[in-house]
Amino acid sequence: MKAITLSDPSDKTSLALTEVETPTPAAGEVLVKVQAAGINRGDLLQAAGHYPPPPGASDIMGLECAGVIEDPNGHDFAQGDPVACLLAGGGYAEYVAVPVGQVMPLPKGYSPEEAASIVEVACTVYSNLVMLAGMRAGQKVLIHGGAGGIGTFAIQMAKAMGCEVMVTAGSEDKLQVCRRLGADVLINYREEDFAEVVKNQADVILDIMGAKYLDRNITAMAPDGHMVIIGMQGGVKGELNIGKLLSKRGTISATALRARDLEDKARICAAVVENVWPMLERGEISHQIHEVLPIADAARAHQMLADGLVTGTLVLRVDA
Amino acid sequence: MKAITLSDPSDKTSLALTEVETPTPAAGEVLVKVQAAGINRGDLLQAAGHYPPPPGASDIMGLECAGVIEDPNGHDFAQGDPVACLLAGGGYAEYVAVPVGQVMPLPKGYSPEEAASIVEVACTVYSNLVMLAGMRAGQKVLIHGGAGGIGTFAIQMAKAMGCEVMVTAGSEDKLQVCRRLGADVLINYREEDFAEVVKNQADVILDIMGAKYLDRNITAMAPDGHMVIIGMQGGVKGELNIGKLLSKRGTISATALRARDLEDKARICAAVVENVWPMLERGEISHQIHEVLPIADAARAHQMLADGLVTGTLVLRVDA
Repeated sequence: MKAITLSDPSDKTSLALTEVETPTPAAGEVLVKVQAAGINRGDLLQAAGHYPPPPGASDIMGLECAGVIEDPNGHDFAQGDPVACLLAGGGYAEYVAVPVGQVMPLPKGYSPEEAASIVEVACTVYSNLVMLAGMRAGQKVLIHGGAGGIGTFAIQMAKAMGCEVMVTAGSEDKLQVCRRLGADVLINYREEDFAEVVKNQADVILDIMGAKYLDRNITAMAPDGHMVIIGMQGGVKGELNIGKLLSKRGTISATALRARDLEDKARICAAVVENVWPMLERGEISHQIHEVLPIADAARAHQMLADGLVTGTLVLRVDA
Repeated sequence: MKAITLSDPSDKTSLALTEVETPTPAAGEVLVKVQAAGINRGDLLQAAGHYPPPPGASDIMGLECAGVIEDPNGHDFAQGDPVACLLAGGGYAEYVAVPVGQVMPLPKGYSPEEAASIVEVACTVYSNLVMLAGMRAGQKVLIHGGAGGIGTFAIQMAKAMGCEVMVTAGSEDKLQVCRRLGADVLINYREEDFAEVVKNQADVILDIMGAKYLDRNITAMAPDGHMVIIGMQGGVKGELNIGKLLSKRGTISATALRARDLEDKARICAAVVENVWPMLERGEISHQIHEVLPIADAARAHQMLADGLVTGTLVLRVDA
């Protein structure tokens, strides 16, 4: 089959479509014929050598896809069934072997390109905000980087669930994007200290900054608050004031989706289909594709994302 | 009524029995005639001026007691009903007003003195290990300070629930106490680095050291582990390696019981009566009283606890 490989890890433009072995589904896996693959920052990190696939996973990039079942391999599917898949890797290819717990139906009314660019963000946002931090109606939620791919999805999901949403972003334009998606409190972090604005109010915090925001997030936290760190754009090591955290009875989690075990991923995918797909189908969460490119243009797509030229998501189309 | 008050906060020996106003139960409270009051480190901290009562609470010391209902104040009790109570303060007295959600029956077969010294530790251990960290059968649990009041209770509860228990303590004698209570792995922290012994294994960690153990606790943590910090004997501020925490998908909480709101405390007390009282009644958790002293000897009792002369708990007896 054809797949995107990286011939020279020091040269991102060496991403190219090459001929590789078609994967064989192992026990517990199905083989999916890929129609579209979403592009994530994790793929850029992997291309740069910073985010190796977990043991046993494909070394091909691509953390989410949509397509049709090629080989049900004894599982309860028929050849040609349309599916959306959460992947530990392997999406940038004509075929991918997928653990059956990570194979989902498409949200009704969604194209393969749309579904392929929603899976990873839906699983990330739902697993962290709801399954881990217990987000529920009536709570106040602080979302950092509100205008990004994760942020825009998180704002809408939190609003759909009846929460009050506070966001940070670095420009008035980005904040207006957040407002249109339903955000209640807009904080331009270049002009205001979010910790002073939110102070003691945030029941749940979704953080992508890590060390740089650690102490201020605790200031922003409400009693019994829960902060989930899913990115470390502001550094890896920071001082934790445990006394301050204890005075809030606060909780800090740091997570990533890709290395979770199969059972966990299956639990997350099932919960997402049950709880998030209906929000998409009712139009409570909208999702913006920036551009669909042919898979052969993966290098260009990565460069666009790296250059910050993307609002919404990029999708690679795999032609039959 | 008579109650212990502190005439000179700079002089711990000024704790003395004095005449004060008998409390009047507010709406949602009952009046309890105290028979026995447990002594906790929080009382020593309060006597030293470091742990003021939360707003609205009695400024008398005493975080737990047992006694009988004096005035049901419209609630579903009869005068003379025996009760054990979780308090935000006020136990070192003849009478105390108690929010009705914090009034529990005594575990069957337990004396008021025994019950009075169990409430606080039972609520602390159950709320943190089970309600917050989700401890369940088959998990590995690391308990620091295994031979202390919290530690001895936590070891037995974790064993009763089917967990494997790893403990730290500072002497062979203390470790043997832990072993008799069921601990599986004994670590003398003076001789071994607990982080290297436990490495990547602890699903749940109950910590009393704070900053000093922060990084090593993350080393000890299993994937998806949850560390709960309830003491900061090793300092308040420490460096948090968020990348390391993220690689475990770990969670850190820091909590205290006293400042929780009434609804939370009621939820904890109900869960403790349902889940921990049966363990006490079946003898799965034993509890050791070091000495029962007359309430007039509160100053001497505090000094004994401060001097480290106590194994098990100290209880003040309030004579009719």
